[in-house]
Amino acid sequence: MTDLEIARSVPHKHIFEIAQSLGIHSDDLIPFGRYKAKIGPTLGERIQNRPLGRYILVTAINPTPLGEGKTTTSIGLSMGLCRLGHRAAVTLRQPSLGPVFGIKGGGTGGGRAQVHPMEDINLHFTGDAHAVSASHNLLSAFVENHLFHGNTLKVDPKGIRWPRTLGVSDRALRDILLGEETGRRPGKFVITEASEVMAVLALATDHADLRQRLGRILVGLTEGGQMVRAEEFSCAGSMAVLLKDALLPNLVQTLEGTPAFVHAGPFGNIAHGNCSIVSDRLALRCADYVVTEAGFGSDLGAEKFFNIKCRTSGLRPDAGVVVATLRALKLHGGGGIVKSGAPLPPGVTGPNPAALARGFANLEQHIANVRAHGVPVVVAVNAFKDDSAEELNWVCERALAAGASAAAVSTHWSDGGRGAEELARAVVKVAAQGTQFNHLYEVTSPIKKKIETIATTIYGAAGVSFSPQAERDVELATRLGFDRLPICMAKTPLSLSHDPTVKGRPSGFTVPIQELRILAGAGFLTAVCSGIQLMPGLPKKPAGERIDVDPQSGQIVGLQ
Amino acid sequence: MTDLEIARSVPHKHIFEIAQSLGIHSDDLIPFGRYKAKIGPTLGERIQNRPLGRYILVTAINPTPLGEGKTTTSIGLSMGLCRLGHRAAVTLRQPSLGPVFGIKGGGTGGGRAQVHPMEDINLHFTGDAHAVSASHNLLSAFVENHLFHGNTLKVDPKGIRWPRTLGVSDRALRDILLGEETGRRPGKFVITEASEVMAVLALATDHADLRQRLGRILVGLTEGGQMVRAEEFSCAGSMAVLLKDALLPNLVQTLEGTPAFVHAGPFGNIAHGNCSIVSDRLALRCADYVVTEAGFGSDLGAEKFFNIKCRTSGLRPDAGVVVATLRALKLHGGGGIVKSGAPLPPGVTGPNPAALARGFANLEQHIANVRAHGVPVVVAVNAFKDDSAEELNWVCERALAAGASAAAVSTHWSDGGRGAEELARAVVKVAAQGTQFNHLYEVTSPIKKKIETIATTIYGAAGVSFSPQAERDVELATRLGFDRLPICMAKTPLSLSHDPTVKGRPSGFTVPIQELRILAGAGFLTAVCSGIQLMPGLPKKPAGERIDVDPQSGQIVGLQ
Repeated sequence: MTDLEIARSVPHKHIFEIAQSLGIHSDDLIPFGRYKAKIGPTLGERIQNRPLGRYILVTAINPTPLGEGKTTTSIGLSMGLCRLGHRAAVTLRQPSLGPVFGIKGGGTGGGRAQVHPMEDINLHFTGDAHAVSASHNLLSAFVENHLFHGNTLKVDPKGIRWPRTLGVSDRALRDILLGEETGRRPGKFVITEASEVMAVLALATDHADLRQRLGRILVGLTEGGQMVRAEEFSCAGSMAVLLKDALLPNLVQTLEGTPAFVHAGPFGNIAHGNCSIVSDRLALRCADYVVTEAGFGSDLGAEKFFNIKCRTSGLRPDAGVVVATLRALKLHGGGGIVKSGAPLPPGVTGPNPAALARGFANLEQHIANVRAHGVPVVVAVNAFKDDSAEELNWVCERALAAGASAAAVSTHWSDGGRGAEELARAVVKVAAQGTQFNHLYEVTSPIKKKIETIATTIYGAAGVSFSPQAERDVELATRLGFDRLPICMAKTPLSLSHDPTVKGRPSGFTVPIQELRILAGAGFLTAVCSGIQLMPGLPKKPAGERIDVDPQSGQIVGLQ
Repeated sequence: MTDLEIARSVPHKHIFEIAQSLGIHSDDLIPFGRYKAKIGPTLGERIQNRPLGRYILVTAINPTPLGEGKTTTSIGLSMGLCRLGHRAAVTLRQPSLGPVFGIKGGGTGGGRAQVHPMEDINLHFTGDAHAVSASHNLLSAFVENHLFHGNTLKVDPKGIRWPRTLGVSDRALRDILLGEETGRRPGKFVITEASEVMAVLALATDHADLRQRLGRILVGLTEGGQMVRAEEFSCAGSMAVLLKDALLPNLVQTLEGTPAFVHAGPFGNIAHGNCSIVSDRLALRCADYVVTEAGFGSDLGAEKFFNIKCRTSGLRPDAGVVVATLRALKLHGGGGIVKSGAPLPPGVTGPNPAALARGFANLEQHIANVRAHGVPVVVAVNAFKDDSAEELNWVCERALAAGASAAAVSTHWSDGGRGAEELARAVVKVAAQGTQFNHLYEVTSPIKKKIETIATTIYGAAGVSFSPQAERDVELATRLGFDRLPICMAKTPLSLSHDPTVKGRPSGFTVPIQELRILAGAGFLTAVCSGIQLMPGLPKKPAGERIDVDPQSGQIVGLQ
């Protein structure tokens, strides 16, 4: 059965009933049909005195291009916690349209560990990503219009750093030349999930904060080198209006009726990779356990969760779950090469204790990365049908030796919440121990120092190099007073290093920084490693070629 | 009171109650909060044997840049019909984000004649326009990706005619140069409301028809001069999936609780200017009177209503309402120059019988234009507070002499449905007379002949000239077999001619056609007059500068 068929075979509850299970009344909901709702602005105040639940971060080792089931583990864990009698919820990012029609497919889990309704969530959902694009591009249009109508702010057209954005993966828009009416000059589109406005949506703590962040966005420089912000183009108010509903968290459900908040979608590699603060806050006031997923491995989403998201929200995680699979560990141990589209090599799918033992080093680093923030680790080994029990147990045992507080095999993909009960029990136990949560670096450190700390501690690098452009960017950010912002690394997810072909736990490498983007509204600096694209391309056979509407049933087919 | 304040001062019914008044059960609705819903695919079949209501088209004379209240008249008339005890509904286009933040403001009526909730309808509404943009741009990305991965279809990159689209008015995207990865070459963005996909959405009769139309879209030519369509890029299925929900009609209400269908938004000047066929069809099975608005004057939206929309739907209008105002007639009679942003000149706002008498000729042409399609005319004089009763009566009397079957003064803006009762009575009477509806031209006529028929009969032109580009386009369309499609003219709305500064009822002019676009999926050819932009720009002081979220109340301010 395909994921879509499994999802359609299961009965679903009305969203009012899901909300009720969290103590949220239907009056607080803005329903979008029967199975989706936004949570209205009225709820927050009413529940502000409820105690906070336990906050569980789910991260992973460096994945194969197929992904290692971090989303399914997050969903499965939340269902497992419910089966143990806890009031649990899961908070996820909204999938991006680009990958849905490109390589990766959707982002709503799979097998028995999905959020519903997957067709909606993977496509337009409640329109938040579209609102982000519109808000972002309105600023572009206002800036261009300002140039056209006399440029009273004396903006240097060449100093405009604000890109355009699109929710579709169109590589021909990576580097364009803009029209002649406002002066032919280079422009670029980034994918919506890399837009600063998406980051603002995910990090804003309320509507007032959203409005202020939008106003603070750095658009560019004047001819005299002074910065100009969105507020000076009188555009931030309209941008906020376009995001007014988008800031309201979205509520859906897992296939077992567990409440799921799916809200905001910054990518884990080229953006900060975490769902919204407003949804986590709300969920933590409504549930005893909130399982939240950060994008890709602990080198990306989790590091940014600890040092950007938690710094902004003030929330403290109680435990970190590191997801690993035998196949990915074997890949890291040299068991074969995994290419999307091609079948997995037997050295990765079959028993291969030698590769597993070598590749385990990758998991070690990720355990260390979470612990470096004072957060205890539970390793979740996401088991596939043909995985050997011996190898699964070996990983669990070694994980404990490597510093994990607990480890469990999980079969949520095939078994749903039942398959994640052992993992859930481990998480409950570890999360009760109390953490000494700390950030990895102080924001007051110099920019280069912060980047070096991340690269050496989290990636295992020997150091960092800066391109001439990156050097200029660092100087500019420092001159403009943005040197006290946290860092958002843009790096490949496929390796601990900046090189996607380097597996395992590399050392001695130097991370090359190509560019530093100042996201003054989001409140961080994005350090872009060489070779990273902020607008993805489509593969030779994009997933969208197989997606269609079935003429008989009228149902969607081919969506994964 | 502002429109927003008036709208907020009125109680609104739950959308289930609105649907109930049309005999639509709540099970057929997909609610978007309390006041908006999409109508699910289940309804159509159930009501297919209900009789069709009367179909009333609302059009207008050539407006001032401020608009002459065609939307308010449509809304007011539907409310007036309800006050007379009829079951009425209004069908409108969805406003475009571009003008909301640009010159024009929103498109949800004004005063006591509005549709609710105006903030939502004017912004993202139920996401349909965003879905159109995503669907459109996915095809662009697939085409580009095809070039990048070997171009097995042997598409001539220079022969690609498919633009990109954006919902924001960004003049810097009118003529860009695309990125180097797929070959630096010219590209362009058109506004979403000029996208062929928007036209497809508006003209599709059901999901199967939508899917086929998308597949038929002409992307460009091969090196050998053969056409390549969206279907050949394996993209049409995904495009249809992205539009699956967008094709479902949206239901809202007027300030007096009259059902209002607001669905699809092609512009009246640069696109075919009419709301969706699916919403009109549904409304006609549910209401005894359906008032539908076509964009701008009878030279634009109405002509396309008769010759594109009705030809596709097979529906026949029972009456045409031509909206006029004293101020616009005086403008056409030389009473002064109207510039947006500047106060109206006294020769236009105050009594000016001489200018009124001269300007009446414009209304005469519009009455004739509707009658040329065999449809009887009711002239609606949309009255402003200080209009003289004498002048209003004079227009009504002259309208009858000029061929209108009835004429009435309407004060719906200040009085709501009560102010449109006389108009409603006139419409009921005229619509009962029976029509001899006919199209203006046969689709089998040659392309140039069809354009000339429109220009001479509807605009009063002496003839049409074709640029060398237009000549080549006509030849190509004929060679490819698209010469039997109807014509969609892209022309200024401010004059019967192609020149916005020419008022009244001009004659002897030649309409210059710059370009002919082949919209094979929509099923028409767009003849673009010289000087017409398919991507608007923003004005010097865009409306968006005043739009914001009020920090105290959290409500939107400045939206008009």
